[in-house]
Amino acid sequence: MSEEFMSRRNLNFVLYEMLDATKLTENEYYKEHSRETFEAIIDVAEQIAREKFFPHHMELDATEPVVENGRVKIIPEVKEALDAYAEAGFLSAHHSEELGGIQLPRIVTLACQVWFSAANIATLAYLGLTKAAANLIEVFGTEEQKEKYLGPMLEGRYYGTMVLTEPQAGSSLADVATTARPTDEGHYLIKGNKIFISCGEHELSENIIHLVLARLKDAPPGIRGLSLFIVPRYRVREDGSIGEPNDVALAGLIHKMGYRGTTSTMLNFGENDDCRGYLIGEPNKGLACMFHMMNEARINVGIGAVMQGYAGYLYSLDYARNRPQGRPLGNKDPKSKQVMLVEHPDIRRMLLMQKAYVEGTFALGFYSAWLLDQEKTSPDEEVRRECGLLLELLTPIIKAWSAELTLEANYQAIQILGGYGYTRDYPVEQYYRNNRLNPIHEGANGIQAMDLLGRKVSMHEGAAFNLLVREIEKTVAETLENEPLREWASQIEKALNTLKETTADLLKAKKDFGPERVLANASIYQEMFGHVVIAWLWLKQAQTAIKGLEYANEENATFYKGKLQACRYYFTWDLPKIEYQSRILRDLDPTCLEMQDAWF
Amino acid sequence: MSEEFMSRRNLNFVLYEMLDATKLTENEYYKEHSRETFEAIIDVAEQIAREKFFPHHMELDATEPVVENGRVKIIPEVKEALDAYAEAGFLSAHHSEELGGIQLPRIVTLACQVWFSAANIATLAYLGLTKAAANLIEVFGTEEQKEKYLGPMLEGRYYGTMVLTEPQAGSSLADVATTARPTDEGHYLIKGNKIFISCGEHELSENIIHLVLARLKDAPPGIRGLSLFIVPRYRVREDGSIGEPNDVALAGLIHKMGYRGTTSTMLNFGENDDCRGYLIGEPNKGLACMFHMMNEARINVGIGAVMQGYAGYLYSLDYARNRPQGRPLGNKDPKSKQVMLVEHPDIRRMLLMQKAYVEGTFALGFYSAWLLDQEKTSPDEEVRRECGLLLELLTPIIKAWSAELTLEANYQAIQILGGYGYTRDYPVEQYYRNNRLNPIHEGANGIQAMDLLGRKVSMHEGAAFNLLVREIEKTVAETLENEPLREWASQIEKALNTLKETTADLLKAKKDFGPERVLANASIYQEMFGHVVIAWLWLKQAQTAIKGLEYANEENATFYKGKLQACRYYFTWDLPKIEYQSRILRDLDPTCLEMQDAWF
Repeated sequence: MSEEFMSRRNLNFVLYEMLDATKLTENEYYKEHSRETFEAIIDVAEQIAREKFFPHHMELDATEPVVENGRVKIIPEVKEALDAYAEAGFLSAHHSEELGGIQLPRIVTLACQVWFSAANIATLAYLGLTKAAANLIEVFGTEEQKEKYLGPMLEGRYYGTMVLTEPQAGSSLADVATTARPTDEGHYLIKGNKIFISCGEHELSENIIHLVLARLKDAPPGIRGLSLFIVPRYRVREDGSIGEPNDVALAGLIHKMGYRGTTSTMLNFGENDDCRGYLIGEPNKGLACMFHMMNEARINVGIGAVMQGYAGYLYSLDYARNRPQGRPLGNKDPKSKQVMLVEHPDIRRMLLMQKAYVEGTFALGFYSAWLLDQEKTSPDEEVRRECGLLLELLTPIIKAWSAELTLEANYQAIQILGGYGYTRDYPVEQYYRNNRLNPIHEGANGIQAMDLLGRKVSMHEGAAFNLLVREIEKTVAETLENEPLREWASQIEKALNTLKETTADLLKAKKDFGPERVLANASIYQEMFGHVVIAWLWLKQAQTAIKGLEYANEENATFYKGKLQACRYYFTWDLPKIEYQSRILRDLDPTCLEMQDAWF
Repeated sequence: MSEEFMSRRNLNFVLYEMLDATKLTENEYYKEHSRETFEAIIDVAEQIAREKFFPHHMELDATEPVVENGRVKIIPEVKEALDAYAEAGFLSAHHSEELGGIQLPRIVTLACQVWFSAANIATLAYLGLTKAAANLIEVFGTEEQKEKYLGPMLEGRYYGTMVLTEPQAGSSLADVATTARPTDEGHYLIKGNKIFISCGEHELSENIIHLVLARLKDAPPGIRGLSLFIVPRYRVREDGSIGEPNDVALAGLIHKMGYRGTTSTMLNFGENDDCRGYLIGEPNKGLACMFHMMNEARINVGIGAVMQGYAGYLYSLDYARNRPQGRPLGNKDPKSKQVMLVEHPDIRRMLLMQKAYVEGTFALGFYSAWLLDQEKTSPDEEVRRECGLLLELLTPIIKAWSAELTLEANYQAIQILGGYGYTRDYPVEQYYRNNRLNPIHEGANGIQAMDLLGRKVSMHEGAAFNLLVREIEKTVAETLENEPLREWASQIEKALNTLKETTADLLKAKKDFGPERVLANASIYQEMFGHVVIAWLWLKQAQTAIKGLEYANEENATFYKGKLQACRYYFTWDLPKIEYQSRILRDLDPTCLEMQDAWF
């Protein structure tokens, strides 16, 4: 069975050839770094992913966490893997030196993360959430809160969670009903039921630090009345030792189709009216605190999706290269040897589609990390502002479109394995099940689409959208004179015009007819937008490949030719879809809007 | 939780309004029947499906069959359901009166089957395979074989299986290696290992009758050297009583992502050189026997897919109607009551897409059953011939395209339920997992596409294809003058021309450049073909709805309006995809063909 789940060659291509990540070391904040330090830590990530994360990913999927005597039991390999990750410093690597970090660029921590994510996403999730919660405490916590909680989290002694959803409030956070009652002792008493809390209960760490959205008494209704609270599972004493349980009860585990090794919990806060929470950030600004991390959280979902796609792609590729089945068309001699699956053009189609989707979204994920780094550390204020805007705009695409494309890739991986593909003895069906969560969690794809068309493309008078257009036009200008790229450059130029005109039409229609008519078709707008963005990332990769080909040895030349062919695939088989999509959009097609409930 | 998994209203619409099934009773073979007898048996099917099949479908999925002390243990509700089905006569209903059947048209047995299939496909599979095996014995078996095996199978005392695949021979049946050695006693000794044998072992029936593809000594290599054998799990004595075990060993159960309640087995035949098989049909014609049933088997896979889609659609519809979440766009008052999910246009889009895919493929499935009945019983020889040809041509679409569209429908059902959608407490993720098998088993979709473009469209000098064109043109002619339908009629007229021209181009290119260049893109041809066929079936439904609207009461009018809106959806959102698909095809796009193994 193949043990390849990630490609170092492609990682290097995106990191150094396409994005020139080492250039980030020119920024003051990253100046201690070099390609050598980057490589060293990526080596460690690859090694731990291979040795500690990958080997148990099938067993964990088959052996879901269960509750025994009130405790959550998880196979021991999970804790071993998580401890190895924490010991190697991956929880704090991106933090400042003052916090014990090594100020690693986000793009390099991503280059580490992809190994774990492809190797075993269900195990990684425990630390992904811990990092997210720690980041939040770092930005909004008081000094005391940081000392008490952040330190142990960065060491991997405490884990963290994000606690938003309630049974009656999923996409509609305005309806969160958990309450927080002030006391004279500085803490609040939290009361309410939460659901879908990933990593909400386990025995993997000394403590679990929940970040809980709740409503202060007399707070305004809706999302403007939500505050954020630190709610430790065990209280932490002044001296930092673990104290009493904090009245957070596990009401049950949720059994999911994928990410089965990641506990998903129902939690009851304050069943005995003794659940202590500590306000973090300002009152009624809880959602703003959460959303401060939302771009990053959504990028992480997108990357999680990409890596499920990646692992499935590499597995099915290995299978196709080693499984003899059938003979070429025209060979009617049944005594002749069977050829490998990869020899059949339709199998190559399924592999090429996977490559196009997986490496396209992979490049987008790394581009977004590069934007994050520049937003944070560029010496040029204008660059920081622009990178921030681009990131805002692209976040729905990174999250939603990556999830959709790579789920399709996972479908193809199963198809290549045939009957074996849908058995649980092979990993591809697990990747597919895992990936099916990604179009939903961290904001369902339909919500992302509303965000994109309803807010992002028009925000700051279209500044972010215009920036993206400029960036794409820049790539077009650079490639339009280059023979092998010219055809794609002119194709994307046309596609960009279609996107611009469609967007303008929709924004005008929003003014003329109100938002409902326009936003009813937001999902197909997001698809169209996604196609243009991924095509652009493919053109950038092709541009990089052409450059690389100039001095390439044979092995590298082979790699670059694959890039060009995958680019060709995306431009020929996918980008043309935007034509019918733009027609539906520009017609303000009312089919879905006018559908009546009773007609179903 | 919703207990609706099928719509009787829509069934009646397709059966009596669109297809006029009662007209079949004019054929001599069905002359004892009437709408009343049809309705009576469909009532029984609905009742047994609701009472015996549906209630345990979630439990069966969660409690997979296991091997204990060499025996397969399955929850007892399965046998209860299967016995009720057999007792009601559904195993033999379609057979002739001589065989104890009631000569029910295939379209009516399908109208029964859809209830079981939507209620609990994993349980139904045991009898689906038994019926298929029984049909084969009826056609090819000797009188003695029929007496010995067919009788008990129709009573539900013996179950049946189809045994083709081997570990090294999946899509490539030419490489089947199981052998059959003649003896002096009339039987053959079977030896070989088989895999993915659905229902290959269980304790649900007195006996299991395996129909096994194997190779006689000195048989030609390839598919022309395969013979078919009856291999009972237990030998049957002259007096019909059960004798010794027949050296068929269970080597293991396969654990699948879906259809988890249907055992999928590895079977070793003749481990002790004492596995007796009985030749059925002529030597070396085994595959022809199997393929005699293949159209029907593939229709059954297509219908299985449709019903997974159907059950998911109705579940998510009920959920959307009863789950309050969020507020309409523009309502910024968080104190106002939440509205039901179905009020959001993007949710209606996801429901309408499901309706369009599920009811479109449902109509196609019933149309194919109508073709089967006419092929078998029409008094007009020309009609019989034409219906046979149409069925041959459409089989890949019924199987492959139904599976793809309805899997997409299942995706949308999950999306509507949000986080709940991917939990195993709700059925929609199970439907999705079940359905993921359908693009693979009974001939992977890529194989179907090769069959369609490589053989079916050109067979008999394009006779079948030309017939389909004529049928579609007939519907166009009937609707082109009808105001609400005219737009769609002219759209499909154009689409049909595109399909005709593309097909002609491809067949010419096959002659000019050989088959590989053309068949490399067979899959996208199948998609394009599928879109035209489903659009046609939608136009037929819309035509029927317009007719119905003339005299409809309010409830029926509501139903017909839904049909028109779903038709509008398919024509606006799906059919236009054929434009870019035909461009890829007519360009003979070589992207996949030219991709090199090393470039991946």
